Amino acid sequence: MSKIIAVNAGSSSLKFQLYEMPSEEVLTSGIVERIGFDDAIFTIKVNGEKVSTVQPVKDHTVAVNLLLAALIDHKIIGSFEEIVAAGHRVVHGGEYFDKSVLVDDSVVEKVDQLSELAPLHNPGALVGYRAFAKSLDHAKHVFVFDTAFHQTMSPDHFIYALPYEWYTDYKVRKYGMHGTSHLYVSQRCIELLEKPAEDTKIITLHLGGGCSITAVDGGKSVNTSMGFTPLAGVMMGTRCGDIDPAIPLYMQEKLGVSAGEMDTILNKKSGMLGVSGISSDSRDIEAAVAKGDERAIITEKIFTNRIVETVGSYYMQMGGCDAIVFTAGVGENSKDTRQAIMNALEPTLGTICDDAANDVRAKETLLTTADAKTKVYLIPTNEEVVIARDTYALTEK
Amino acid sequence: MSKIIAVNAGSSSLKFQLYEMPSEEVLTSGIVERIGFDDAIFTIKVNGEKVSTVQPVKDHTVAVNLLLAALIDHKIIGSFEEIVAAGHRVVHGGEYFDKSVLVDDSVVEKVDQLSELAPLHNPGALVGYRAFAKSLDHAKHVFVFDTAFHQTMSPDHFIYALPYEWYTDYKVRKYGMHGTSHLYVSQRCIELLEKPAEDTKIITLHLGGGCSITAVDGGKSVNTSMGFTPLAGVMMGTRCGDIDPAIPLYMQEKLGVSAGEMDTILNKKSGMLGVSGISSDSRDIEAAVAKGDERAIITEKIFTNRIVETVGSYYMQMGGCDAIVFTAGVGENSKDTRQAIMNALEPTLGTICDDAANDVRAKETLLTTADAKTKVYLIPTNEEVVIARDTYALTEK
Repeated sequence: MSKIIAVNAGSSSLKFQLYEMPSEEVLTSGIVERIGFDDAIFTIKVNGEKVSTVQPVKDHTVAVNLLLAALIDHKIIGSFEEIVAAGHRVVHGGEYFDKSVLVDDSVVEKVDQLSELAPLHNPGALVGYRAFAKSLDHAKHVFVFDTAFHQTMSPDHFIYALPYEWYTDYKVRKYGMHGTSHLYVSQRCIELLEKPAEDTKIITLHLGGGCSITAVDGGKSVNTSMGFTPLAGVMMGTRCGDIDPAIPLYMQEKLGVSAGEMDTILNKKSGMLGVSGISSDSRDIEAAVAKGDERAIITEKIFTNRIVETVGSYYMQMGGCDAIVFTAGVGENSKDTRQAIMNALEPTLGTICDDAANDVRAKETLLTTADAKTKVYLIPTNEEVVIARDTYALTEK
Repeated sequence: MSKIIAVNAGSSSLKFQLYEMPSEEVLTSGIVERIGFDDAIFTIKVNGEKVSTVQPVKDHTVAVNLLLAALIDHKIIGSFEEIVAAGHRVVHGGEYFDKSVLVDDSVVEKVDQLSELAPLHNPGALVGYRAFAKSLDHAKHVFVFDTAFHQTMSPDHFIYALPYEWYTDYKVRKYGMHGTSHLYVSQRCIELLEKPAEDTKIITLHLGGGCSITAVDGGKSVNTSMGFTPLAGVMMGTRCGDIDPAIPLYMQEKLGVSAGEMDTILNKKSGMLGVSGISSDSRDIEAAVAKGDERAIITEKIFTNRIVETVGSYYMQMGGCDAIVFTAGVGENSKDTRQAIMNALEPTLGTICDDAANDVRAKETLLTTADAKTKVYLIPTNEEVVIARDTYALTEK
């Protein structure tokens, strides 16, 4: 038996989940928020109850020591040595990493280089890794990349219709995100379909604050809606997704803002928030729709349209589709969103919604009727268990 | 019997076609190129032969007088009065015009206002109109808009997931282009399908130097791939189409170029030219593919992929598709492009290519086999005849 910690470190936060492997039992989980502040918040689950404390946490090393001490204090572990390995979520693996890897100096150097492509994420992951490497210097460390699952896309799907030098000289290509989530739910869906993985065609809808859709053919990602950055693809809470690329350039001149400022508008002030003028949260939009708010109604329709269009693209690309999977915050919890999408797909894919089954939250469920031509599932995502599994697989020897 | 002239005026050129209506007989056609230069070229068809002359043409008024005089000289008309009406192609009708209109001062004012949205096109159309209005002051004049056919799109398809004020204050929305072409070929396709227009679902592929795809449901445009500008949608000769909108902003900072310069790169240096490094002309790409050039092969695949994905989107949006139409330069002349697309669509839409039928150029043809589930047609486009028809319909009373 081995205890493995799965870590998701951001620039000012650190989430963790402690697993017993290979049983995949979750021993505890928690989060340190507001790292760098005097009123940082540390929350840990003890016997199923959340315990929160507020204290100064100067940096990630302090955060790591705080959480490790709490594991001892709450008798979840007897000593640090029980934790044999740590798996770290890294957003961007570029073209270097098509799967999880054991960390060494050259791996760290590559992830550091890739900070250029994920300036908000890769540096945080490295800071988290270094703090754990110091405090758990006996343990093995593994990096698990959000982009890795999508490295199976072919060049004619990841190269943009842009000057080719932008790819060779600036690494501008489609990478995709949420790979760990798409991998998890597509693998689970293959199990549910009860046919050989290589014969399955699945479209996975990861709908949360960020949204991405992936075409999974024979268990491999063959296309995905996020692109060079997580701004691309369908409409999201505050992100525009794909639009006429001339618009930001036109509006830059109209508003007199820089490229960087425009990037912020497209990432933070657009999407559901921009169209509705109400909120980036689909629950607030649904409430406004119920009151008849016209812009909220349009917002909801655009959200559905963009997803339906993308499903259509991937259906055509793969030449078929056995199943569609909903996952992540909105996908797992909004029955209205799921129903609207299933209804829109029904004329062509025969995704007849089973209304009783669809009245569910965050629980693995077949959402379509028994006779539906294409199956639609809700499969709660679990990126942490993928991190724990990959870490266990790479370190148990 | 009425003679009607159909005019397509750009900033330095003026194309025309003279029709006998309602028979739609083409009496002659021609073009004045390099308006504003001392070596302008005037070409006119006389008894089926092209006659070209080179002379100084100071402005559009000189060009119009030149061509009208030639009509008399070549005895195509006896006097200017025989031309009872002129129809003028205007690129951008904004939200003002959902069909062709008789020109009056308020119409001219609106088209002038819309120059903001089509700075390269609307001013040229107005200059052309004014020159004809002076020389043919007895005639009636009609404007025919490239955007009009797409005004039937619903708000949830024309509003972008951007700050809503960009729509209300800056008119940023999807307009679409090539409307006259999509209208013409979809109407002809409806005739060929021999079912009531309201029961037809057609996807029209206008593939030329610019490319756009339209979903035509019940004879009406319900979605189209070009957007706020003609940069959007699929890959084109030199245009990128839809991409992650963060890329131009990222590359603006990398290359140190302005928003306007970036717009030029996306419009003139991208697409087939950008990826292949060879040419924007699909014939040159096909030749390089035949020699095994790797980037040309990727270019061709991306071109096909983006079209197939868009067809998939519209198939899903409409909940079906009776027929697909190829038109415009590439669509009418490249059998390889058509075949690649039909093959890619075959697993889902059953578009079995009839290779013998597909070996054709610019001639109305059913390209699929008799038993194909979805029909695919080549229908040569004819925007001029739509201009003549609309002009005749609006002026004959």
